[in-house]
Amino acid sequence: MASPPSDDLLNRLRAALGPRGMLTDPADTAPYCEDWRRLYRGRTAAVLRPATTAEVAEAVRLCAAAGAAIVPQGGNTSMVGGAAVGEDGSELVLSLARLNRVRAIDPIDMTMEVEAGVVLKAAQEAAEASGCLLPLSISSEGSAQIGGVLATNAGGNNTVRYGNARDLVLGLEVVLADGQIWNGLRRLHKDNTGYCLRQLFVGSEGTLGIITAAVLKLWPRPRETAVALCAVPSAEAALDLFGRLQRRDAAALQAYEYMSGAGVDLVLRHIPGTMLPLSGPAAHYVLVELATPRDGTDLKAELERSLGLAMGDGLIDDAVIAESGAQQRTIWKLREEHSEAQKRAGASVKNDISVPVSKVPELIRRAAEACERLVPGIVCVPFGHLGDGNIHFNLVQPDGADPAAFLARDHELMDAVNAVVRALDGSFSAEHGIGRLKPYMMPEWRGGAELELMRRIKAALDPQGLFNPGKLLP
Amino acid sequence: MASPPSDDLLNRLRAALGPRGMLTDPADTAPYCEDWRRLYRGRTAAVLRPATTAEVAEAVRLCAAAGAAIVPQGGNTSMVGGAAVGEDGSELVLSLARLNRVRAIDPIDMTMEVEAGVVLKAAQEAAEASGCLLPLSISSEGSAQIGGVLATNAGGNNTVRYGNARDLVLGLEVVLADGQIWNGLRRLHKDNTGYCLRQLFVGSEGTLGIITAAVLKLWPRPRETAVALCAVPSAEAALDLFGRLQRRDAAALQAYEYMSGAGVDLVLRHIPGTMLPLSGPAAHYVLVELATPRDGTDLKAELERSLGLAMGDGLIDDAVIAESGAQQRTIWKLREEHSEAQKRAGASVKNDISVPVSKVPELIRRAAEACERLVPGIVCVPFGHLGDGNIHFNLVQPDGADPAAFLARDHELMDAVNAVVRALDGSFSAEHGIGRLKPYMMPEWRGGAELELMRRIKAALDPQGLFNPGKLLP
Repeated sequence: MASPPSDDLLNRLRAALGPRGMLTDPADTAPYCEDWRRLYRGRTAAVLRPATTAEVAEAVRLCAAAGAAIVPQGGNTSMVGGAAVGEDGSELVLSLARLNRVRAIDPIDMTMEVEAGVVLKAAQEAAEASGCLLPLSISSEGSAQIGGVLATNAGGNNTVRYGNARDLVLGLEVVLADGQIWNGLRRLHKDNTGYCLRQLFVGSEGTLGIITAAVLKLWPRPRETAVALCAVPSAEAALDLFGRLQRRDAAALQAYEYMSGAGVDLVLRHIPGTMLPLSGPAAHYVLVELATPRDGTDLKAELERSLGLAMGDGLIDDAVIAESGAQQRTIWKLREEHSEAQKRAGASVKNDISVPVSKVPELIRRAAEACERLVPGIVCVPFGHLGDGNIHFNLVQPDGADPAAFLARDHELMDAVNAVVRALDGSFSAEHGIGRLKPYMMPEWRGGAELELMRRIKAALDPQGLFNPGKLLP
Repeated sequence: MASPPSDDLLNRLRAALGPRGMLTDPADTAPYCEDWRRLYRGRTAAVLRPATTAEVAEAVRLCAAAGAAIVPQGGNTSMVGGAAVGEDGSELVLSLARLNRVRAIDPIDMTMEVEAGVVLKAAQEAAEASGCLLPLSISSEGSAQIGGVLATNAGGNNTVRYGNARDLVLGLEVVLADGQIWNGLRRLHKDNTGYCLRQLFVGSEGTLGIITAAVLKLWPRPRETAVALCAVPSAEAALDLFGRLQRRDAAALQAYEYMSGAGVDLVLRHIPGTMLPLSGPAAHYVLVELATPRDGTDLKAELERSLGLAMGDGLIDDAVIAESGAQQRTIWKLREEHSEAQKRAGASVKNDISVPVSKVPELIRRAAEACERLVPGIVCVPFGHLGDGNIHFNLVQPDGADPAAFLARDHELMDAVNAVVRALDGSFSAEHGIGRLKPYMMPEWRGGAELELMRRIKAALDPQGLFNPGKLLP
């Protein structure tokens, strides 16, 4: 257990960071002490708000000398309490929000250098203003910050084409546990000069170092997009259709999302202004988006041809291709409102899981069977990124059942889903990470040599264990 | 210094690996004791040739218990002595060549699981037989093995589209320094469950663990390619043309190679059967290759349109688009024979460097000026992967000069080139790594916090320092 911060440490920190650089009034620190999902409420003696990398380093040096633990925090949008503060008041919060400059954009290199506190949406807009695309897109992009996005290796809808956050990082600047600054802000596409440190910090959830800036890879901005909604006879057909599009249109395939009939039905019932642009409801849907940086191609015609062939082969029962941006948004709304619709339908249990792409249909079938055995009448709502194997296997209470009684069985249900995931060589946390919610699952899933390696690395880089204690490692 | 292997250790290893699993006759071990470039000649008491991951683990356990150092070796094609054996006879060679099975290919997941000893070309062919593409392609692919390719994060001609070896790795199996096996053979596109260990081993040059198998990401196989050779007025024009193609045809841009007039001239003079398919020689050339998995598109017409527009804007003086596979090979031969032509032209000094893409023209100009100041009449032959910033800046002796006198100045010339690379925020080793040749450069280029982090990681994962001693770290 780290020591609680002394008055002497707080005074030194205040002197180093200045009056704007530190909050101590409980009214000011409260928002930093509760996570977005309201799973955890902690307390802290101070929220540090350094404005520069040098100030971050100085704050870490002072804390390290005093043995005070630090919780790095960006937009505080973790789904797993990744930036949650402990209850005993011993931990200090270090907010990166004031490191919010876009330092440089180079549209020829297709790179941008941004500080950790830049909000993802602001980074996307800066890239767009330079004629480029920062392809990372997640639902929290309006408040999530670059530092947190990289520390948690965020995913999203477009990974089927552009990869995860990890795949967009060329360089990093990191403050280490002893307060040293590692300047690894290189913007090179080839550089074989020692261990790949940047990929160790990306996804380490703030437990190995504090990311203060990054060089991100950009892409050409799409000039034309085409979006289709397809009713398909089965999850197997959805997978087959994905394989065809991937082989034919891999270079243009921007999103490939699966939705169940039950999920779309909840959206249509609970979200005003939604509609199904097909002749009738189906048991399975896919949303396809193609995009290209070229102009002068006719993507809609391309997509129509691909879908027409698939329909002829029985992989599609019904389909519509959006004729306008407004129609594209109508189709996407069916997908994006899934979480909100589930919330309105009653209590629900969430699983953020992944399996090899080829096993998605089996996952959907077997996990549903397992959950129905446990809770007859349960509404299984599998949806999400079929193209990268990441399915949000959410479970909604039976209509009219008692929400509390349903939620009391959440661990039982999660265990049932995870048993199927395990049998299919999948992962129990595809996008959201481990945070404070899931370290207990690590020994079972990543135990033995793997967990031992992680512990050795943690001890080598943060020997005092001061960075984000209680997260990621059990 | 590790202890020399005792008779007792050798007997135990022989018992564990069987008669086919160990070579001790100097006539048999000699080929393993000299590197491909013949920079180093070492000696060893035994070459271990385990046939399975379990045998690799057992051999490492026995060596670790005895404190004997191990040099992991694949195809032994390193350009920097990455698998070279020391001269004092204390190190054992561990060849992965017998772990040579393609364990699985899944054309729906687009993944393949291969053992470390599979030759890269064999892996490419296995992928192709399943209708997929393993896009990694390097000149040593006929003998380089997957384990070495990953341990050194190989690059090549197609990284502008598919990335480096690192970008193709989804999972790894690694034998650790204490003989434990880490089974990280996951084939998931999203998996946020702890530190990204695989990217730590990829590029670590055998100093942290021995890669025994990997899950690689595959791509759809291209059905149509188009290749053009363009004479361009300047390196700046070559860069501008790249920017245009990238914005317009990024999804199809498979290779973008720069060649100097001097380099092409050497090829035409020294390599029989080469010809320039343009109206006359130029000072700068680029080779463009587009490829697409679609059929029914007309890539040649696309390319013609793009190049025509660029010509109208003065970015191209002359261009030819190959009309057949044979013509494509004729154009590629001008690029591929660069090294051989330089060899025939006399003594040469090689630099494997990278800079941000936007700085390639400045690199070419300033490095040439610096070298000409040192050796008037020197032939500068910059060529290579403009699209990813990796230029092979090779230097050929002045016509008729004394080769030995020229080679005596190799360090002076490399330092002059590297000073320019340094000023342009580049890297002194883009593709080839550090190996035994370049650790002395690490403190200057990657010193301070970065080298200290690497040393801590090495100590955490290989505390006895038994894996590939003398490589990568100074």
